[in-house]
Amino acid sequence: VTASPEAARVLDLEQVEDTVFLGRTPPGPRTQIYGGQVVAQALVAAGRTVPADRDVHSLHSYFLKLGDPSQPIRFEVDRLRDGGSFTTRHVTASQGGAVIFEQSSSYQRPEAGWSHQLPQRGDVPTPADLPTAAEQVATFDPVTQAWWHLVHTMFPLEVRFCDEPVRARVLRGERPEPRQRFYIRFTDPLGGSALDHACALAFLSDLFLLSTTVLPHGLLVGETVSISSLDHAVWFHAPFRADEWLLYDMEGSWAGGARGLSQGHVFDAAGTLVATTVQEGLLRRPRPPRA
Amino acid sequence: VTASPEAARVLDLEQVEDTVFLGRTPPGPRTQIYGGQVVAQALVAAGRTVPADRDVHSLHSYFLKLGDPSQPIRFEVDRLRDGGSFTTRHVTASQGGAVIFEQSSSYQRPEAGWSHQLPQRGDVPTPADLPTAAEQVATFDPVTQAWWHLVHTMFPLEVRFCDEPVRARVLRGERPEPRQRFYIRFTDPLGGSALDHACALAFLSDLFLLSTTVLPHGLLVGETVSISSLDHAVWFHAPFRADEWLLYDMEGSWAGGARGLSQGHVFDAAGTLVATTVQEGLLRRPRPPRA
Repeated sequence: VTASPEAARVLDLEQVEDTVFLGRTPPGPRTQIYGGQVVAQALVAAGRTVPADRDVHSLHSYFLKLGDPSQPIRFEVDRLRDGGSFTTRHVTASQGGAVIFEQSSSYQRPEAGWSHQLPQRGDVPTPADLPTAAEQVATFDPVTQAWWHLVHTMFPLEVRFCDEPVRARVLRGERPEPRQRFYIRFTDPLGGSALDHACALAFLSDLFLLSTTVLPHGLLVGETVSISSLDHAVWFHAPFRADEWLLYDMEGSWAGGARGLSQGHVFDAAGTLVATTVQEGLLRRPRPPRA
Repeated sequence: VTASPEAARVLDLEQVEDTVFLGRTPPGPRTQIYGGQVVAQALVAAGRTVPADRDVHSLHSYFLKLGDPSQPIRFEVDRLRDGGSFTTRHVTASQGGAVIFEQSSSYQRPEAGWSHQLPQRGDVPTPADLPTAAEQVATFDPVTQAWWHLVHTMFPLEVRFCDEPVRARVLRGERPEPRQRFYIRFTDPLGGSALDHACALAFLSDLFLLSTTVLPHGLLVGETVSISSLDHAVWFHAPFRADEWLLYDMEGSWAGGARGLSQGHVFDAAGTLVATTVQEGLLRRPRPPRA
C-alpha cells in the first residue's frame, strides 16, 4: 500500500502572483476534496508570505462550498497584520471565481514564557509495541480492509491505531464512546522548516477527527452517515516533525442539530503536547444512490 | 454593585450603512477594550445581515491590535456565503482606518440529527446553593474585593463561583490546577431572539477564560502577568437564555512560548451543553509602571 507520488506533492503550490498560489488535488477515486488538503494548502500559501523568523501558532478555517477535485484551487492571501511580535494572514480559496474556503492564521516571533500542559489521557503503547498498518489491516473485515487501503493509497500517511479500530467495533454492532487514538506520520521525509511540518500536521489533522463524534450512534461514515467539515481550527504548541510518529487522541464531545464537534490533542513521542485541534461538521443521512 | 446603564446597552450597535455598524465602549476605568465586547459586537453586526430563520452555530475571531475605548469601533460585514442550509459572514472591526479585529461566523437553518454530549465534570452545586456575589465578595481579601467590584461595575453580569475563587487561592501562595467553574448571567432581562442570547454569551464567554491557564504558575492577572487575547472561538450547541444562570466550566490546557490556551464548556441549569469555547492569549510579564 503506497501513496501515489502526486499525493506526496500535495503541499507543493504553484506561485502565480505575489500573494496568489495554485494548489492541485492528487488524482484518485474521491468525488470530493479531502478537507485537510485545503486547510494545509491554505497554510502553505499564507506561510510563504510570512517572514521566516515567525512560526505559525494557530489557524481557523471555514469550509464554504464543496470543491471540485478535477480543478486547481486558487489561494489568495491578504496580509491582515505585520506587527512587532505577530503576523496574521487571511486566505480565501476559490474555484471558477467562487470562494470555497477561508482561513486566518497567526504567526509569532519566538518568545519565552511560562509553560505547562495537561497530561496524556491514560496509558499509551509506543508505536513499536503496535502491529504495523499491514498487520492491523489483515485482521479487519473486508469492508474495513477496502476502506483502509483507500486511505493509505490516497494519503501519504501511515497510521497505527492504539486500540482496535472503532470502525471494526461499529461494524460488529457496538456503539463505542466517542474517542479514538492512533499514531500517525508522513511516510516520506518532509522538508526541514517548522512551517513544512505545521502544514503537514494541518493536512493529517482532519483524518478521522469528525468520525469520532458519530461513534456513540453506531454510524459508519460514508454508509449510514455522510460527513462534511464546516470549520477546522489548529493551535500549534511546540516544535515537532510530522514524518515521525505523533499520537493523535480525539474526542467527539457533542452532536446535535445535524452537526457534531470533535477535539484532538497531538503529542510527540516524548509526550509533549504539540497541537490542539477542533472541528465541527455536518452529519447527515447519506443520499440514496440514484436509480 | 450595579453595572452602568451604558454597560447594559453595549450590544446595541448603530447602523450606518447596509453592512456597516458602529459599536461603542461603555465609559469606565479600563485603558483597553474588553475582548468579549468586540467578539459580541461583531456577532451583533454579522447577525443583523442574516435571515431570521438561521441560528448562529459558530464564530472564530482574531484580535489584531489593541483598541481605543474612547473611540467608536466600525464593524464592516462581508457576506461570504448565502447557501441553501448555511450562511457565513466575515466581519472586520476597525478604528481610524486600522483593522483591530476580524471574525467569521456561521449560521444554519435548523435541522434535526443525532445528539449526544459529554457529561459535566464532577458534581456541581446549584446557583441557589451558593452564596450571592455580595456574600462571596465579603469573604475576600481587600485586593480581590476591589477587583470584584470593578468586574461587577464594568459588566452587566452576575457571577457566583462554585468553588473558592482561584484568585483568592493564588493570593495565599497556592498554585491551583488550571480549572475553574462558576455560574454567570446577565443581570437585566435580554431580548427574545436566539441571536440576542448568542451575542450575550459571546460577550460573557471571554470573562476569566484565559486567566484559567496561568493558575498553575501562581500568577495574578494585571499584577504578575499581563494577558491579551489572540483569538476567540465559540461553538453554539443548543438554545439557552443568557439572562438565566449558565454554568461556565473552564480548563487552561496548555501554556508555552508566552502564550496560553483555555477551553470552556457552558451548560444550562438542566445540564445541557449549550456552548464550547476556546481562546488563546499572550501571557507576558507586566511592564513596570512609568516613573
